[in-house]
Amino acid sequence: MSPKITVELLRQLRQAMKNSKYITEPIQAYIIPSGDAHQSEYIAPCDCRREFICGFNGSAGTAIVTEQHAALWTDGRYFLQASQQMDNNWTLMKMGLKETPSQEDWLVSILPENSKVGVDPWIIAADQWKSMSKALSSAGHSLVAVQDNLIDTIWEDRPAPPSTKLITLGLKYTGLTWQDKVTALRGKMAERKISWFVVTALDEIAWLFNLRGSDIEYNPVFFAYAIIGISNIKLFVDSKRLLDPAVQEHLELDSPSKPELTIQCFPYESVYTELQAVCAALAPKEKMWICDKASCALTQVIPKSHRSAIPYTPLCLAKAVKNPTEIQAMKMAHIKDAVALCELFAWLEKEIPKGMVTEISVADKAEELRSQQRDFVGLSFPTISSVGPNGAIIHYRPLPETNRTLSLNEVYLIDSGAQYLDGTTDVTRTVHFGTPTDYEKECFTYVLKGHIAVSAAVFPNGTKGHLLDSFARAALWDSGLDYLHGTGHGVGCFLNVHEGPCGISYKTFADEPLEAGMIVSDEPGYYEDGSFGIRIENVVLVIPAKTKYNYRNRGSLTFEPLTLVPIQLKMINTDLLTQKERDWVNDYHKTCRETIGAELERQGRKAALDWLIRETQPIV
Amino acid sequence: MSPKITVELLRQLRQAMKNSKYITEPIQAYIIPSGDAHQSEYIAPCDCRREFICGFNGSAGTAIVTEQHAALWTDGRYFLQASQQMDNNWTLMKMGLKETPSQEDWLVSILPENSKVGVDPWIIAADQWKSMSKALSSAGHSLVAVQDNLIDTIWEDRPAPPSTKLITLGLKYTGLTWQDKVTALRGKMAERKISWFVVTALDEIAWLFNLRGSDIEYNPVFFAYAIIGISNIKLFVDSKRLLDPAVQEHLELDSPSKPELTIQCFPYESVYTELQAVCAALAPKEKMWICDKASCALTQVIPKSHRSAIPYTPLCLAKAVKNPTEIQAMKMAHIKDAVALCELFAWLEKEIPKGMVTEISVADKAEELRSQQRDFVGLSFPTISSVGPNGAIIHYRPLPETNRTLSLNEVYLIDSGAQYLDGTTDVTRTVHFGTPTDYEKECFTYVLKGHIAVSAAVFPNGTKGHLLDSFARAALWDSGLDYLHGTGHGVGCFLNVHEGPCGISYKTFADEPLEAGMIVSDEPGYYEDGSFGIRIENVVLVIPAKTKYNYRNRGSLTFEPLTLVPIQLKMINTDLLTQKERDWVNDYHKTCRETIGAELERQGRKAALDWLIRETQPIV
Repeated sequence: MSPKITVELLRQLRQAMKNSKYITEPIQAYIIPSGDAHQSEYIAPCDCRREFICGFNGSAGTAIVTEQHAALWTDGRYFLQASQQMDNNWTLMKMGLKETPSQEDWLVSILPENSKVGVDPWIIAADQWKSMSKALSSAGHSLVAVQDNLIDTIWEDRPAPPSTKLITLGLKYTGLTWQDKVTALRGKMAERKISWFVVTALDEIAWLFNLRGSDIEYNPVFFAYAIIGISNIKLFVDSKRLLDPAVQEHLELDSPSKPELTIQCFPYESVYTELQAVCAALAPKEKMWICDKASCALTQVIPKSHRSAIPYTPLCLAKAVKNPTEIQAMKMAHIKDAVALCELFAWLEKEIPKGMVTEISVADKAEELRSQQRDFVGLSFPTISSVGPNGAIIHYRPLPETNRTLSLNEVYLIDSGAQYLDGTTDVTRTVHFGTPTDYEKECFTYVLKGHIAVSAAVFPNGTKGHLLDSFARAALWDSGLDYLHGTGHGVGCFLNVHEGPCGISYKTFADEPLEAGMIVSDEPGYYEDGSFGIRIENVVLVIPAKTKYNYRNRGSLTFEPLTLVPIQLKMINTDLLTQKERDWVNDYHKTCRETIGAELERQGRKAALDWLIRETQPIV
Repeated sequence: MSPKITVELLRQLRQAMKNSKYITEPIQAYIIPSGDAHQSEYIAPCDCRREFICGFNGSAGTAIVTEQHAALWTDGRYFLQASQQMDNNWTLMKMGLKETPSQEDWLVSILPENSKVGVDPWIIAADQWKSMSKALSSAGHSLVAVQDNLIDTIWEDRPAPPSTKLITLGLKYTGLTWQDKVTALRGKMAERKISWFVVTALDEIAWLFNLRGSDIEYNPVFFAYAIIGISNIKLFVDSKRLLDPAVQEHLELDSPSKPELTIQCFPYESVYTELQAVCAALAPKEKMWICDKASCALTQVIPKSHRSAIPYTPLCLAKAVKNPTEIQAMKMAHIKDAVALCELFAWLEKEIPKGMVTEISVADKAEELRSQQRDFVGLSFPTISSVGPNGAIIHYRPLPETNRTLSLNEVYLIDSGAQYLDGTTDVTRTVHFGTPTDYEKECFTYVLKGHIAVSAAVFPNGTKGHLLDSFARAALWDSGLDYLHGTGHGVGCFLNVHEGPCGISYKTFADEPLEAGMIVSDEPGYYEDGSFGIRIENVVLVIPAKTKYNYRNRGSLTFEPLTLVPIQLKMINTDLLTQKERDWVNDYHKTCRETIGAELERQGRKAALDWLIRETQPIV
């Protein structure tokens, strides 16, 4: 991996920072966040501006360029990668280390008095703008919105914004029509006396309208905005996409069933002016919802007196609680995904001894096997396929220069998932094709104990996921071990593999209480730097739990695993498991054998079936 | 319990709200918070203004009086008590219920346009003022500071503020001189480029100066303020208290050892004007620390540009991490306290069958036995002594009209503690003097499992206490049970029995990481309304843990119980315990027997020693 040479680019950017074509007064610093106008986690190539300017292509990071300095802030997952991808013009700011200044503190320490700091208001979230602006102005500087994106002005071969074909999803997949969803949303708005809601998150728009796209790799979303009123629906999307008769019919563009369910379509770019028009016509006490993570640009269109900024939207919550049709569809997707993985592991056992299987070739094989399954659309994130020491790099993605060969001597970790029309999967298995060491087995078993502790946890209705995080760590902690990431994230249904507003993490205190129908991952791990990585991840469904008592009639919840792929018995030191934990493993493997076995049989995949039966023998 | 008649008092208060003697313009509402000028949890009689106006004397609650309404907000612990103590003029606002409006929302819903809401700026914390003021002004109203406390104007026989004798604590108890503490504090200030620190919390002042008082029952503190500069120490306290030669000598008032360790003494009331004078002399970039929970009145003296409001102070943290001398002293206090409790339980076994022992008489007996111990000062909080259904009232305090007799048929819960010169104790034991039911034993055992899970937890350095809270609940949750309070609080060393900034609670996310030397309580419970209450509470010390591995050299922590009072074996269903839990109980009881046994022997308390030996038999 050689660093990107950025001398010339930085020179051009610093010129743009003084160019009166773009700005009325010169700015002394320019912030380049990593998001797009929708604050998406994964972004389209046209939005990879931070990567363009500094070379670092990790998923999280913010670059700041001043007249003298250029610095990039990123977190522990990316310290090594960022230092390899950036040249000497850049200073790496290692977030989370005590000695690393915050962006605000750093700016204040180096800026001349009365400086102006610029940022594109479309790609900075409103809450981030607010805190940055406050910090700067209390030190005598100011944060200014630069309407032309200065990176775009110097990015000659910037890719065009994508506009892929839209997919319409019928009731069979969604369980609810988009009209039902709009009506339910309006109910929530009426409850809170809200007359308009500006929808900016791409997965919320896709979910609301039962549409999918492929504008962003791995995330089946499409660029759009929506403004929902009590009797209006305004959709902002590239108009070419609406020429498809299937989409026209799905959205009832020609013949809406009811006036209040008529969709008015506008070009994507006109959201700003249209929102201005809506705001201009607001009655004095009317209130408008917008997420506090929406772009600063759109947020500031809404006058403060009308703006109700919320940390997560009612669509985010509605989307998180899957309906029975979605749950059934997610189960189907997970069965197909498990078939592909059983087939993969059976194939690996045969092929590895030949010495030709690499991290990349396994990732390719996994994708091939998944693509053989019905309604396969694509992967849900880049496959993490890692051998030995590469497994200790939590967000590892094999590249030709790092690609290792699988062998009988090293631990192998594969974290992968797919998008099917009926659902999204995300599963991690850690396996050994030879004989694992006692230490590897010991660590694996602690991770497994943590996985089971969460999966089998029973907890009261209304409990937030972050209260379960320590269950996943207790066995590791007991031996002085730990892992430096959260334990679980929400998972969409044929949508983003990471979604809010629930999760299981020591970091997330803004998470919403878990409720039946939510789907999250359960993925504790252990990483021995330079040696191996272990992670055991299932996607699990929140379900009601039957308990002996029922304190204050609150009801209880627990989890049901949707992922049904055997956990390698060879890696387990069964002496370290309690009887309850052994029972859990055996019950889980029985379900895998029955459910996936039947499907393997149906699909005539004999080798995978044999493998499954062998790998799901009960332990005693 | 009959309600307080408040018709006349409310009439008088409403007159005061329009009286130009106190306010320039009439106010439409007046807020009466429950704290004092130092935001103390326990308050002196002269500060019980909320109780005076409405009759409710619980520890938490805010009253608001408007021209037409009078309402009191309190939480679930006090719904019953408040409804019994208040007359029909008052509306009880049950906090935590969905239908209950916040104070802000309620005010906005009933106030006429452009209203003024008054509050005494000395008894509202700066952060509360800020949020209330923001909510009111966004609805067109305003929050105004009323300098004369309107309750005091109508409270004819208001008690005088206390000014008790000060106790000086030597190095034997404190481990550090006050001069050492001031010097260390100045080090922290210099690190953060802070030139002044306004100390307002009474326990912080008491700890800093190694002084104690008895102005507030149960809390050995005294009314004072301090303003610490890099080369100044300003102490604000009733000057009569400084006439005591012991205090004069302790504070080196006549012959300070160094100029920068000279204490300037001022009358308590002059803190406002003196702080004004200090602020007037500040250089442009000088910063002053004040806790964001300090009074609005003092906070607003400091110009915003000089003010650095912090959620907890460096003294709060320094006080929380006990030094070796304090730890040794706390251990001694807990040994003496355990002696008193062993004696109490031995006495109860003999006396209960006679049918004359009541909740109140046990509380009195416990106090008598504690007072026989060396360096006893007083109780650390009102004893919770509760039989049967009274045990389910979490903050129960026996009164003549609720007083029940102990018997062989009901569960008995006693939560009590004392102040000794060497330390503060807080212990809960739940016992049965006859034969507990299977259900009572089952619930007790779940609570015990939770208690052990926290006490024996091993966790990485830097872990916050709230991450341990679910460990205390897992066994209860498994059976559909729970308890609606936190699991632990910080405990002072001959100081407040509740102190920050650490704790173990699902509610506390602003807690500071646990570190070796901190002392907290571990007190899960279970409460069956109308039937019984269970709580098992030890005070525990955070200590380094030895672990098999040491991930990233972070080090690990665990707890050592300081409380050494047997846990009643009769209440345990040992079938529900794991072997590890049985070992914990046996190890704990072995330590109780050895440590407390030796002291009982030394004190010649034969009956208690026999009881202790019987109650600490190992379980198999």
